[in-house]
Amino acid sequence: MTQTFHERLSALDAIFLDLENETAAMHVGVVLLFDAKPLTLDSGGLDMERITKYTLAALDTMPRYRQRLAWVPGFAHPVWVEDGRFNINFHLRHTRLPLPGDERMLKRLVGRLFSQRLDRSRPLWEFWIVEGIENDQFALVGKAHHCMVDGVAGVGLIEALLQMTPVVTEKEPSSWTPRPAPTRRQLLRAEVKHRIDGLRKLSYFGPRIRENFLGVARVLQSGMKAGPESPFTAPDISPYRRFDWTSFDLDEVKAVKRSLGGTINDVVVATTTAAIRRFLEARDLDVDSMEGFRAFLPVSTRKTSGGPTGNQVAMLLAELPVSEPDPLERLKKVIAVTTKLKKESNQTAGAELLEDVADLTTKRLILDISREAIKRHAYNVVVTNIPGPPLRLYMLGAELKAMYPLVPIPPTQNLGIALFSYNGELYWGFNGDWEGFPDLHEFVETLEASFEEYKQLAAASAPEASAGPRPDLSG
Amino acid sequence: MTQTFHERLSALDAIFLDLENETAAMHVGVVLLFDAKPLTLDSGGLDMERITKYTLAALDTMPRYRQRLAWVPGFAHPVWVEDGRFNINFHLRHTRLPLPGDERMLKRLVGRLFSQRLDRSRPLWEFWIVEGIENDQFALVGKAHHCMVDGVAGVGLIEALLQMTPVVTEKEPSSWTPRPAPTRRQLLRAEVKHRIDGLRKLSYFGPRIRENFLGVARVLQSGMKAGPESPFTAPDISPYRRFDWTSFDLDEVKAVKRSLGGTINDVVVATTTAAIRRFLEARDLDVDSMEGFRAFLPVSTRKTSGGPTGNQVAMLLAELPVSEPDPLERLKKVIAVTTKLKKESNQTAGAELLEDVADLTTKRLILDISREAIKRHAYNVVVTNIPGPPLRLYMLGAELKAMYPLVPIPPTQNLGIALFSYNGELYWGFNGDWEGFPDLHEFVETLEASFEEYKQLAAASAPEASAGPRPDLSG
Repeated sequence: MTQTFHERLSALDAIFLDLENETAAMHVGVVLLFDAKPLTLDSGGLDMERITKYTLAALDTMPRYRQRLAWVPGFAHPVWVEDGRFNINFHLRHTRLPLPGDERMLKRLVGRLFSQRLDRSRPLWEFWIVEGIENDQFALVGKAHHCMVDGVAGVGLIEALLQMTPVVTEKEPSSWTPRPAPTRRQLLRAEVKHRIDGLRKLSYFGPRIRENFLGVARVLQSGMKAGPESPFTAPDISPYRRFDWTSFDLDEVKAVKRSLGGTINDVVVATTTAAIRRFLEARDLDVDSMEGFRAFLPVSTRKTSGGPTGNQVAMLLAELPVSEPDPLERLKKVIAVTTKLKKESNQTAGAELLEDVADLTTKRLILDISREAIKRHAYNVVVTNIPGPPLRLYMLGAELKAMYPLVPIPPTQNLGIALFSYNGELYWGFNGDWEGFPDLHEFVETLEASFEEYKQLAAASAPEASAGPRPDLSG
Repeated sequence: MTQTFHERLSALDAIFLDLENETAAMHVGVVLLFDAKPLTLDSGGLDMERITKYTLAALDTMPRYRQRLAWVPGFAHPVWVEDGRFNINFHLRHTRLPLPGDERMLKRLVGRLFSQRLDRSRPLWEFWIVEGIENDQFALVGKAHHCMVDGVAGVGLIEALLQMTPVVTEKEPSSWTPRPAPTRRQLLRAEVKHRIDGLRKLSYFGPRIRENFLGVARVLQSGMKAGPESPFTAPDISPYRRFDWTSFDLDEVKAVKRSLGGTINDVVVATTTAAIRRFLEARDLDVDSMEGFRAFLPVSTRKTSGGPTGNQVAMLLAELPVSEPDPLERLKKVIAVTTKLKKESNQTAGAELLEDVADLTTKRLILDISREAIKRHAYNVVVTNIPGPPLRLYMLGAELKAMYPLVPIPPTQNLGIALFSYNGELYWGFNGDWEGFPDLHEFVETLEASFEEYKQLAAASAPEASAGPRPDLSG
């Protein structure tokens, strides 16, 4: 017999399977917009044969994309096994936008695609190649289950598809032979061994664990405080999503930060806070009563760019000063909050350990805690900011013109905001519940207006602030 | 509180949920091809707003399409409840074929769509409106779960969308308010009552039941005999499907039947038998050893065109004379088999009763029997022939030019054949496993050649046979 293969999901990875339900799909996603010319055939369509071969070659370095879930009997713990029936044509899908192919139609398609859950009996990803987008563009809409990738690792396959020059280097896909999955008995034996080894390790690290538990307790305590009621949370969202986007010039964001203070992320959080405030005010809601309006800011704990895929994320909960009417004061308060959070480093360390403990014993605890935090609206909105490549990228010679990320929302959240920086732009992707957040586009416009305000304030105080080596006065 | 609503699935309906697994999706389907002109906007795209409104109005008479599954606690029996979150845009999907938009691309899209299982947390149907098909056509690709409709009832919504004239009559969709689902406790109470009532009814009909059980036993006995091994069955199929089609002129089929004998269905079964024989021969397989090659012919037991939706189907197992080399002898043998089956009317009556008994007591029995029959390859291929409308039909003024049906295949079957007659044509839809039946298109060509042979044989003996009132010598 050939060598069997399986790999255990970490407890944190597995939790994203448990958190997914009928209304809350748990995949991350991205919309990439490309210049279509270099990949267009004489027939007018895209060269899918070439894209397929190219994607297959990229998969050779990303084994997870040809693996599917299996379950350890008795423990009901998920493992990855190789999918003997992997068929690239099921995962890499080819479609065309209905006419006229404008941005509104693309957003509508993406909203529907992100509303559809992935099929758990197959490798947990889909790429949709969308032809027929105005201005001679095509899109790659990517989905991958959060149990398989986090925001940073999710970029893995996309990164493997992208190149830094328009000069194309193509590899032949290798011939892939799936290794058989172990028997139920073998799976059970491996799981028991894993748990016994784990308990040994746990008792060895005993003292360190106790110390770190204090950090964990702090996170949990703040996590259990309910945020204020607002249109951003709901007792129960719908299964349908709207997806919208915008982008900011990164130099303009930097100019604001140079002129008014803080980091790029502080400007992002302050702009988001301003948008939330305006949005609530436009609905005649009392912003002063929104004390404790919290954003969940996932932070990557990944140490190297290589290493394991899956989730390496810690959670930071930041109180947003939505009741602060003055934009400059608001930014100052945001800077104070994020600086304080960064100092409390055991928050992240704690979260990392929580993961270790959960993995070694049972994921029940961390799952219950996560569920409880979600139910109690421990936070009002997710804002995740993923640093992307600063240079222009290409796929098979086609220039990547924009990339809008998607963060999934839990069953009690109406809005998730994800950011991605690329080639001098900051791309925002907004994942809103169809029913609970019907005015998503209005929110995006409000956010743009809020940034405009910061830009003007920065320009007003620019002469002294932008005295650096490369002054930016263009925006 | 408002009145709650729920409706129990029949045992037979529920079985299609249980039979569905990771590799075998259990939806029926259809591909409708329309002339696109009457629904094309100035932008070149289809008038989706109008199609959506029109579909919504049709749903008003088909409540099942706004209902989703719920489960009776303890019994795990499914019921229908109204989907308070019904969103037409999730079910009625708009897409466009990649360029060049030829038939091959449409078949590829349809194969992919039919490979995707329906989301069980929502109403169990999808309609895909596909723009951009060559010769200025558009397609409606429909999927509905077999637990919700059988082949005949599946046509319900399609029928509600179609009209007999190009003159359009449009209705306003009514405003629909979902009734709440009952509580778990209410569901449980209703289920217990249903079962007690059922047991009473069962003892009352005791004598009739015993008599009918003899019929059932006969079906089961023949159902347990394994068919021969061939490329048409497999221990385990893949989750992916190919979909292909062809169509025959109904007048030509009638000419064959008039000249050579039998019914339209006999000609269909004989042609299929001939195609299977040729297909096996081309693969150097010993057709003489294919004794007992059986086709499963679902027969509708529906009495009226109105009445309940859901499954009202009985099963007929017909031995196909694949080892018979002579086409005329083959047709004669097919006629003998179907005539005999029709006489054994308790076969159908038995199957009907099996359904009653299963519904009244437990569906476990009938499920185990079905599973066993599938595992043992009690039959080698499914051939289902659904009589459709003989007249030209329209949707919002757009002429319906073709309709290809899909029958789902169980986890051990490589090919399902469904037929639909419409406006003087006989439309064949072939549902093949991607891996186990890669040469599906070859099979379709073989089938066309087999019919050509019957046509020529009929023409040769035509002078005396077609002396009826309306001789057909055109084909």
